[in-house]
Amino acid sequence: METYSNYISKLIENFEKLPGIGHKTAQRLAFHILTMTLNDVEEFSKSLLEAKQKTKHCSVCCNLTDLDICKICSSTARCSSTICIVEDPKDVIALERIREFNGQYHVLHGSISPMNNIGPNDIKIKELLNRIQNTTIEEIIIATNPNVEGEATAVYISKLVKPLGCKTTRIAHGIPIGGDLEYADEVTLSKALEGRRDF
Amino acid sequence: METYSNYISKLIENFEKLPGIGHKTAQRLAFHILTMTLNDVEEFSKSLLEAKQKTKHCSVCCNLTDLDICKICSSTARCSSTICIVEDPKDVIALERIREFNGQYHVLHGSISPMNNIGPNDIKIKELLNRIQNTTIEEIIIATNPNVEGEATAVYISKLVKPLGCKTTRIAHGIPIGGDLEYADEVTLSKALEGRRDF
Repeated sequence: METYSNYISKLIENFEKLPGIGHKTAQRLAFHILTMTLNDVEEFSKSLLEAKQKTKHCSVCCNLTDLDICKICSSTARCSSTICIVEDPKDVIALERIREFNGQYHVLHGSISPMNNIGPNDIKIKELLNRIQNTTIEEIIIATNPNVEGEATAVYISKLVKPLGCKTTRIAHGIPIGGDLEYADEVTLSKALEGRRDF
Repeated sequence: METYSNYISKLIENFEKLPGIGHKTAQRLAFHILTMTLNDVEEFSKSLLEAKQKTKHCSVCCNLTDLDICKICSSTARCSSTICIVEDPKDVIALERIREFNGQYHVLHGSISPMNNIGPNDIKIKELLNRIQNTTIEEIIIATNPNVEGEATAVYISKLVKPLGCKTTRIAHGIPIGGDLEYADEVTLSKALEGRRDF
């Protein structure tokens, strides 16, 4: 016999759809919702819908925003001649956290991955090229992830962008700070050696 | 600079309020919501509200239900003369999972805990006594948790219920199946010895 009502079952099912949430956790979260005040639940329910409905891509950098042009792109305090290319909106958050980069971003929303049927036209490369052609860009920093897809995307973009005459750089790969040479994998170690710099 | 819109921040805040969900997980869940279809998000949002609004206490056993009298209490297949008293709706689910108990339940929604200012009147004991006085009950199984509050609640209820003339039992405490005598704590071991039975 089903021991809880359909409404609770449905809520548990919905929680289970979220990444990293199994049946037990979903059940715990659903029962927690029932102990919350109606006001709080209403706010949660509204925030889900609002976040989904009002979030769109910035018409300049393709990052997620509720505005037509996102805060970073419309800020006069930021240098518009340097663009850092990342795969995901979460990468922008990670880079903003270090508070050192003062340029703008371009979010690709993925990386070229023939294995998953994602080609150059499925990510925001066209938007990037338009942007470069219409504004004066001094430097393009490619900060895609250091895996096969990210590297392929980086090479692809650098080949498209170089003829347009702007400097193209790739973020450094090597031993992470606090890391241990002994435990570094071969590829990282070889990248670290390859990317060595003068003192 | 806030890198994401207010709508996303608010959604992250709401996820953070849930038990066991920290900032990083909340952020991951919020970004996952943005990748879901609008339909799925609408359903999730609706299920939150519905579960909260339509769930109430069963007028007989105080378990959570969307009906006036819950499925277990209204089932004719279940023996109404045995009542198992538990602290929490989740305990009912745990007991139903073993598919062996065919009686009805009574959910206290807590346990007596003077430390937390929860007295006998703050949990559903009055409802239990009404129920016992109005129907013929043969056995009351007290299945509150085996901790200080649960034991205190069990003793309190047994003292109230015994004068009404129905058999009162407590679920067994001892070494769990698959457990190891060597690693059992002293209290559990002493309970196991105390509760020994003839072969």
